[in-house]
Amino acid sequence: MTDLTVPAFETTLPGTMHEVEGSVREALQEQGFGVLTEIDVAATLQTKLGVVRAPLKILGACNPSFANRALDIDPAVSLLLPCNVVIEAAEGGTHVAIADPRALMSGESFAALAGEAAEKLEAVITTLRDSVASNST
Amino acid sequence: MTDLTVPAFETTLPGTMHEVEGSVREALQEQGFGVLTEIDVAATLQTKLGVVRAPLKILGACNPSFANRALDIDPAVSLLLPCNVVIEAAEGGTHVAIADPRALMSGESFAALAGEAAEKLEAVITTLRDSVASNST
Repeated sequence: MTDLTVPAFETTLPGTMHEVEGSVREALQEQGFGVLTEIDVAATLQTKLGVVRAPLKILGACNPSFANRALDIDPAVSLLLPCNVVIEAAEGGTHVAIADPRALMSGESFAALAGEAAEKLEAVITTLRDSVASNST
Repeated sequence: MTDLTVPAFETTLPGTMHEVEGSVREALQEQGFGVLTEIDVAATLQTKLGVVRAPLKILGACNPSFANRALDIDPAVSLLLPCNVVIEAAEGGTHVAIADPRALMSGESFAALAGEAAEKLEAVITTLRDSVASNST
């Protein structure tokens, strides 16, 4: 831990990176978020630098309706889109973290929209946690 | 303008979106940044919502060496990667804006690294401006 502060919704799930990524994509879809970009960070750094890191992927998630409203409020919001969903190997399975849009889209003009988006992204994490709970009973 | 604050390096260049995107990619490459992701925001919103917006693209730029150092400092930085480069149609040509990593990677532990990255990204904008100046003489 450092003094970097990026508030996020997060959970650790049993399952491989591949399995958890599939569940994350489904849960995002249920909340209206498509995945527009995908970076396999570990693979990229291995190719570019020859460095071996633990598996780490970044998905760029976007809810088109929220994005459109955000751009209507202030086009400069494009510097903050899409919303990062980080998937990485962790003790006990795979860790998922979704950046809290309220932390990035600060400012009164975005408060309502960022709040709605945050609610849906938090629901993604809740869905993922619940699916584990129901599988284990 | 709203109360959203995303410090960025920016300039407006003559030329079409396509021409400017080519120059931006070259200038990023010169500073060691590859383009890992690309979102055609206008096309995506037209497809998904039927909404017509001015041309707008977001490139996700990454300098592997900086990314690797950042992840070594704190893996949570993955919530902020890659660096957004926004290209959009504007009066007089095409507007380019690159998010200032010092604004996003706040915190003392990232100060030196974010400063180095900011210097290189600012050099991208300087290169783009200079190329226009030398073309017009």
